[in-house]
Amino acid sequence: MKNYKLVIAYEGSRYYGWEHQPDKDTVQGKLETVLMRMCESQTVPEVIGAGRTDAGVHAKAMVASVRLDTRMSCEEIKAYMNRYLPDDIGVVEVREASERFHARYKAVGKTYSYTCYVGEGKPVFNRRFVTKLDFMPDVERMQKAAVYLQGEHDFKSFCGNPKMKKSTVRNVDMITIKRSKNQIYFTFHGTGFLQHMVRILVGTLLEVGAGRMEPEDMIRILDARDRKAAGPTAPAQGLCMEKVDY
Amino acid sequence: MKNYKLVIAYEGSRYYGWEHQPDKDTVQGKLETVLMRMCESQTVPEVIGAGRTDAGVHAKAMVASVRLDTRMSCEEIKAYMNRYLPDDIGVVEVREASERFHARYKAVGKTYSYTCYVGEGKPVFNRRFVTKLDFMPDVERMQKAAVYLQGEHDFKSFCGNPKMKKSTVRNVDMITIKRSKNQIYFTFHGTGFLQHMVRILVGTLLEVGAGRMEPEDMIRILDARDRKAAGPTAPAQGLCMEKVDY
Repeated sequence: MKNYKLVIAYEGSRYYGWEHQPDKDTVQGKLETVLMRMCESQTVPEVIGAGRTDAGVHAKAMVASVRLDTRMSCEEIKAYMNRYLPDDIGVVEVREASERFHARYKAVGKTYSYTCYVGEGKPVFNRRFVTKLDFMPDVERMQKAAVYLQGEHDFKSFCGNPKMKKSTVRNVDMITIKRSKNQIYFTFHGTGFLQHMVRILVGTLLEVGAGRMEPEDMIRILDARDRKAAGPTAPAQGLCMEKVDY
Repeated sequence: MKNYKLVIAYEGSRYYGWEHQPDKDTVQGKLETVLMRMCESQTVPEVIGAGRTDAGVHAKAMVASVRLDTRMSCEEIKAYMNRYLPDDIGVVEVREASERFHARYKAVGKTYSYTCYVGEGKPVFNRRFVTKLDFMPDVERMQKAAVYLQGEHDFKSFCGNPKMKKSTVRNVDMITIKRSKNQIYFTFHGTGFLQHMVRILVGTLLEVGAGRMEPEDMIRILDARDRKAAGPTAPAQGLCMEKVDY
């Protein structure tokens, strides 16, 4: 049994998220099925992801760890997986990792992007990767609001899980918001993110961009420690996991 | 009744091509259904496309002409169409045209692109828009071959319709082939193209890129005036109609 680090890209459109669920297509489920067959194993190898993306969320470089009993080389494992996985899941890299490597516990930082499409046209070619807005948000106002959100805070107001019992303190050290032509492109880097946190951050920043909230309202929202204080949860499809740091 | 020029973008993946066919989803069929409803018309308005793309072929800017009996403004027509057309068909522009404007007969030039993906990875995010190759073609050899194909020639060897009775002489004044990272990107500009012509040109150039044909073989292939002399028809999904000139 050796421990492996996998880097996985996927289009999340037709999956019920990363984590396996009975009778539903999930990314983790697809990976485990292929690896079980590859190793001719009787038990399902547990593929541990750095994070659990929601249904419809994409990843350019999700990192996973898995223990496998195989004589195949890393290149052979990659080729086998890419051959038998569906078209919308790709293995970017397979590498032997130390015994202690754990994709979730050892992750020290994550980068997510969120893309909005603005304009009267239809995003025909990238419609699965963007969230269409029916107004042009004020990027400068959103950037001002983002400054209040950056840093270490209790993000309870931005947590989609009302039953969350563990600490909701996180450090988001970077939020960037850029506009290029018809797209508004957000990036978030932090030590970790709560459930739906990036989508609620985007939903709240868009309220500021629309003029329905003020940048300074972010102070009040963080202080409230109440999901109802923040803006709506932005749709899943604009979200993409870009990178995991170890 | 006024004559309109439409510019249409579509992802062709789930369509049986541009031209309507009974009981099949086609781009022309979708457009005509929406326009018929919009005009509350008893007859189907005929949407004439600049070209007839095959099943699976995409378009960034297909041009079409159609006569409509409506009091709506061009902006209103565009908004209505974009609202009721499926997500994978978008209207980029609607404009009133002169009575004599005919999208097919008045077209004087067309630009097509063809994109190949090369590399061991999987093109997870743009898999519907590229043709995956299992080898790296020699771009310089293909460029040399392209020089022989440029210009006015009888392209009968590159025509997918064996029963073609009209002239198979066409003028392809520009072929470019570029490589950027994992992609090989072809563009073709010409006065007009025969059925499957761009795909057969790409299939033949890839034979040269693979070393199975020589650049000079293009002379022999053109002279043969026989489909069997040329290379295979490259898959539809890499092809995209980029522009129509009037």
